[in-house]
Amino acid sequence: MTTGADRHVVIVGAGFGGLEAARHLAGVPVRITMIDRRNHHLFQPLLYQVATASLPTSEIAWPIRSLLRGHRNVTTLLGSVTGVDRGAKTVLLDGEPPIAFDTLILATGARHAYFGHDEWEPYAPGVKTLEDATRIRRRILFAFEQAEWESDADGRAPWLTFVIIGAGPTGVELAGTIAELAHDTLRGDFRNFDTRSARVILVEAGPRILAGFTEDLSAYAERALKRLGVEVMLGQPVSDCREDGIVLGGAFLPARTVLWAAGVAASPAAEWLEAPADRAGRVRVEPDLSVPGEPEIFVIGDTAFVAGADGKPVPGVAPAAKQEGGYVAQVIKARLQGKPAPGPFAYKNAGNLATIGKRAAIVDFGWIKLRGRLAWWIWGIAHIFFLIGLRNRLAVALNWLWIYVSGHRSARLITQGQAGTARKAQ
Amino acid sequence: MTTGADRHVVIVGAGFGGLEAARHLAGVPVRITMIDRRNHHLFQPLLYQVATASLPTSEIAWPIRSLLRGHRNVTTLLGSVTGVDRGAKTVLLDGEPPIAFDTLILATGARHAYFGHDEWEPYAPGVKTLEDATRIRRRILFAFEQAEWESDADGRAPWLTFVIIGAGPTGVELAGTIAELAHDTLRGDFRNFDTRSARVILVEAGPRILAGFTEDLSAYAERALKRLGVEVMLGQPVSDCREDGIVLGGAFLPARTVLWAAGVAASPAAEWLEAPADRAGRVRVEPDLSVPGEPEIFVIGDTAFVAGADGKPVPGVAPAAKQEGGYVAQVIKARLQGKPAPGPFAYKNAGNLATIGKRAAIVDFGWIKLRGRLAWWIWGIAHIFFLIGLRNRLAVALNWLWIYVSGHRSARLITQGQAGTARKAQ
Repeated sequence: MTTGADRHVVIVGAGFGGLEAARHLAGVPVRITMIDRRNHHLFQPLLYQVATASLPTSEIAWPIRSLLRGHRNVTTLLGSVTGVDRGAKTVLLDGEPPIAFDTLILATGARHAYFGHDEWEPYAPGVKTLEDATRIRRRILFAFEQAEWESDADGRAPWLTFVIIGAGPTGVELAGTIAELAHDTLRGDFRNFDTRSARVILVEAGPRILAGFTEDLSAYAERALKRLGVEVMLGQPVSDCREDGIVLGGAFLPARTVLWAAGVAASPAAEWLEAPADRAGRVRVEPDLSVPGEPEIFVIGDTAFVAGADGKPVPGVAPAAKQEGGYVAQVIKARLQGKPAPGPFAYKNAGNLATIGKRAAIVDFGWIKLRGRLAWWIWGIAHIFFLIGLRNRLAVALNWLWIYVSGHRSARLITQGQAGTARKAQ
Repeated sequence: MTTGADRHVVIVGAGFGGLEAARHLAGVPVRITMIDRRNHHLFQPLLYQVATASLPTSEIAWPIRSLLRGHRNVTTLLGSVTGVDRGAKTVLLDGEPPIAFDTLILATGARHAYFGHDEWEPYAPGVKTLEDATRIRRRILFAFEQAEWESDADGRAPWLTFVIIGAGPTGVELAGTIAELAHDTLRGDFRNFDTRSARVILVEAGPRILAGFTEDLSAYAERALKRLGVEVMLGQPVSDCREDGIVLGGAFLPARTVLWAAGVAASPAAEWLEAPADRAGRVRVEPDLSVPGEPEIFVIGDTAFVAGADGKPVPGVAPAAKQEGGYVAQVIKARLQGKPAPGPFAYKNAGNLATIGKRAAIVDFGWIKLRGRLAWWIWGIAHIFFLIGLRNRLAVALNWLWIYVSGHRSARLITQGQAGTARKAQ
């Protein structure tokens, strides 16, 4: 144990996985350094609500160092990791000297991916960071502002057409909330057109939405979306994204706002380590989440490919990342105490949730499936419960309650630049 | 009256003055077009709290069109006015066709000014817009992050030195809140240094701070600032601002965070109109706030120079702008109804308030002067009362209450860019 105190555990990334690892190691006699490119932990499951002006940024993100403030053996550093030197056992940084580690935990997450069409990104942004979310919010709100300037319906149509590509949980949540924004929240705010004339189109290459759920639940979700006024286009791969619209099944669809929710790729951790990876760039880790041949380097969360006990890979969701972070902490503790290592990591699926707008959701706990209003309340309570910090729970709850009863959304701000520059930003 | 309905009143700028004018004209049979470069009305008196991470942006700014939603004769447009054609009676816009007016109200506000040293702006930003505030917040928080990287006190010193130039209300409020941030809120968040070692320096060229108040009140405010740990340097004109510090009385003071609160200049409305202006670029308006020789063009708020009844110019504060907006609406109504014009505009001073950190403030109602904790509560209640929209009042009140009891600040987010780019942003 005495030697433990000298051990230096470096954690890269303060997402769900990295933060959980740091917290479980807090009591352990090791020095911990947490490095993140941003100063805040982001509650990504609610990021789409920032993008759709339902929540202000400050209510789903918190300074990492204040989250870890109580853990005296944790030092938090704001820095950009650019690589790992396996031989020297150091982490390489942008503009700072390398940092040596005894044990390394890489929890660097994922970005959205365009399947070899990175040129689409400026026209079809994805939502992974606070900046993504505020950019998308600006784009959505600006489209309505621009429509108010147009003199006829033809001119307005492209500004009032919102396309979401990809019908996973994020795509469905975006489509549902944008539909509510257009048909409910913004209604009456404009003089030259009816916001209900806006089209919200959810495009999916596969045969159904929310493929991660059972067929009956995804069928229900599709009906719920249509009730909100969302047009669902299935089996429609997108062949091009441009500034003024997309190409779908050979036909051009004019739309000034296109959002990407179709896929993610892991952070470059695999390249840093020159470790074996899957097609999405995720490191293929050992059953104890360490890198093959590197027992002191662990990879967790969206950056890791973990073959589950049942052969099915562990999904890239927050609960999985948290469980992996906690598990790695156990492994490190066991080694310090000279105890036998715990068995291989096993993911416990606590259930799948997805929400469709303000009053509908689907929940699959395995032993029970729920849908509709009750499911929505379960979804809301679960998310508020998981939000870190009492105050934020309260603030988010108040916000949702307010939106729920009044239909108003608080965070409808177009920040950065004035109208002129915003127009150019389009 | 019947002809009234065809009259087109264009208001440029949805600040306190423009918004008040629109609201008072709402019932009147005229068409009103509100044009602003931004989609939100900003409660500027609290902007410094965003800059110092006390309030999130969404709680001091609200979409203009939702504020005016109920007024059916008001159309809100997001657009950048670039000039006025007096002859054609049109407003010129960036990227949109000109808009014709019968009556024009210019309420385009002011920006901070560098007295012929615009090259100082990147090193000493001022706080006038939400973007200014978030940029400054990023800079302040990033300075502490950077200090955590430095290996010795000498390297940390410039990052932990915060200079505020100008000791008017904004400068005092910034200095007091940054001192609290360093000495209280952030305390214990860092491992390599004590945030209380940070220096907060308030620099003023004049002989005393808060010159707008009586000598005893500004003396009290200075003592209160010093209790918070702020160093006050009086009679010290700044002769240079650089990336790494400022030159003060011939000596170089290393500081990585320098904020500008020393002066403002009016928007270019005077140039648009080729109208007589004062040194700060404010249009010298007639007693009825119209432009000399242009009875149908009014200028109000920080863009107007109004010689008060007592000869003293009307101050550039929110209550004055609101009173001017309401007054111009009265003038327009009287003309429509063929009634005699109201007397010349007379500013009613409701009192001056300034706050020094969390528990001290000074209040001068003329008939009574207050200072200390009671004054702070009056300041807080007054500001919450004037915040538009019940929900925001509630949210801000909750926020302040939270900060007051817990010392935590909710909005400590460094957004835009990762550490690497943020560093370059320095």
